[in-house]
Amino acid sequence: MKYFGNSNKSSELESKIISLQQSITLQLENADGKGKFIKDKWERDEGGYGISMVLENGNVIEKGGVNFSSVHGKVPYFLLNEKQHSSFDEQQKRPENFYATGLSIVIHPENPMVPIIHMNIRYFEMDNGIWWFGGGIDLTPIYVDEEECRFFHRKLKSVCDNYHPNFYELFKKNADEYFVIKHRKECRGIGGIFFDRLNSSLYKLSQIEIENFVLAVGNSFAELYVSIINRKKNFPFTEEQKNWQLIRRGRYVEFNLVYDKGTKFGLETNGRIESILMSLPKFASWQYNFKPNPESNEMATLKILQEPVSWI
Amino acid sequence: MKYFGNSNKSSELESKIISLQQSITLQLENADGKGKFIKDKWERDEGGYGISMVLENGNVIEKGGVNFSSVHGKVPYFLLNEKQHSSFDEQQKRPENFYATGLSIVIHPENPMVPIIHMNIRYFEMDNGIWWFGGGIDLTPIYVDEEECRFFHRKLKSVCDNYHPNFYELFKKNADEYFVIKHRKECRGIGGIFFDRLNSSLYKLSQIEIENFVLAVGNSFAELYVSIINRKKNFPFTEEQKNWQLIRRGRYVEFNLVYDKGTKFGLETNGRIESILMSLPKFASWQYNFKPNPESNEMATLKILQEPVSWI
Repeated sequence: MKYFGNSNKSSELESKIISLQQSITLQLENADGKGKFIKDKWERDEGGYGISMVLENGNVIEKGGVNFSSVHGKVPYFLLNEKQHSSFDEQQKRPENFYATGLSIVIHPENPMVPIIHMNIRYFEMDNGIWWFGGGIDLTPIYVDEEECRFFHRKLKSVCDNYHPNFYELFKKNADEYFVIKHRKECRGIGGIFFDRLNSSLYKLSQIEIENFVLAVGNSFAELYVSIINRKKNFPFTEEQKNWQLIRRGRYVEFNLVYDKGTKFGLETNGRIESILMSLPKFASWQYNFKPNPESNEMATLKILQEPVSWI
Repeated sequence: MKYFGNSNKSSELESKIISLQQSITLQLENADGKGKFIKDKWERDEGGYGISMVLENGNVIEKGGVNFSSVHGKVPYFLLNEKQHSSFDEQQKRPENFYATGLSIVIHPENPMVPIIHMNIRYFEMDNGIWWFGGGIDLTPIYVDEEECRFFHRKLKSVCDNYHPNFYELFKKNADEYFVIKHRKECRGIGGIFFDRLNSSLYKLSQIEIENFVLAVGNSFAELYVSIINRKKNFPFTEEQKNWQLIRRGRYVEFNLVYDKGTKFGLETNGRIESILMSLPKFASWQYNFKPNPESNEMATLKILQEPVSWI
């Protein structure tokens, strides 16, 4: 089964993702209590469209985007040249066209006690029959709160366990390997789950089971993040803590612009820049050779980010 | 003539660059009136050292770095694979070791009426005898001031004209092609001059003549920028203009992290991160789909940045 050229099938998946987008934005507006998402529908010259929903200057959310897209066109050159991509063997038809749809979320809260969060689900296929799902959720606290980390990872594990007993462990490891700011030798945050190129050839799941897993990941997002927001949105913070948040956001910018594959894919396929770069914070800071006090909470967080932790 | 293995020759060049660093930092401190450069000497595990000089929170300069480095070691893999690099033909010895020295400057002023400036001079050589100089100066105004642009480019032309009648035109074109934020379809600033892989095989100049040209570029920097600072450092500005500066700085970050070759080289050769990323501003901002008013000065600047201008 594949979606390409099957407009019913792809519009079914797209409808589900758009419903999810609506549900998530409503729940986030509720949790914020002030901010409203503005909706921008855009079209892509080479084929496809998107619906970007962005909230700025809320009570809790300083800047957040919940972006749907559905794009298609010629397979980008850099994808065809990925040697590690086992799907392109000599016997297979060289793909010409691709179709991709998905939802991407990044939320930058105002309060440094509330972590930054990122969620993404995506479906990709080519006209040679190759298809895969990808996605994940990961958390970037400004101050690592161990209880919150355990809560977050436990929730993700319970979503994964409903579909495959190995998913959490595998996808947690993927996230730990992916969300690394290599030049800083530090992790972007406390990880989560990350998966790519998930298809039926692995784990003996059908396409619909994989789709259901991916949608379950998407569905877990709002409840998970809203409960984190509600616990912390009124925590007091100092100017010093706000400054530390700006510095950590600078690191977030470094990861996204230097390493993030979604950003790279967007920039190289003439994606809509404002939607791709909604992931960047309203304000960020770079201060020369900033070193937290050795006994500080900032340093405690930095130490935890040196290498991945088993939170369960 | 080459420097590699000729410690007198390379230490002579290094001495000249370190003198230039001292002279520039003194002139900038003078112009600033308050800020002082702090000096950090660092060593590179794989070979070499650097002297980073950084000024933060001055009267005029919010953040600025004037960084000397002298590094050597194994030629990075990505350099060996550059097919366009005509110097590696089959007959030539495959290089194993490199030596590089240079000075890199980025100044982010507090006042949005004072432009950001970047200057770099560098010398690179490998143990197969291949060597080249590179460098340039370019200006990134938050508000384009046409008189200032003409002044800036005229000064650069007069430096170039002392060495070769074609230099200004060629190197201005290089800068126009290099300092482009491709995904934004806009120039980073109003250009300047940029040159790379400058050696004796071109323009019939000896190595010492090229070295003198490169040092003349370096020497022109302080006078040029101090005169811009002095004209504008007390110009009043509004909160709206400050916000526009933060947005333009966000674009500066995008260029440096996504496209800048010096940054890439630094990150990929295990350079000193705090020295490489001193180029990033203290504060920057990303605001969703920010569009200046059509009749505003912000829009006038944006229009000028759409494509390179002949300023002379």
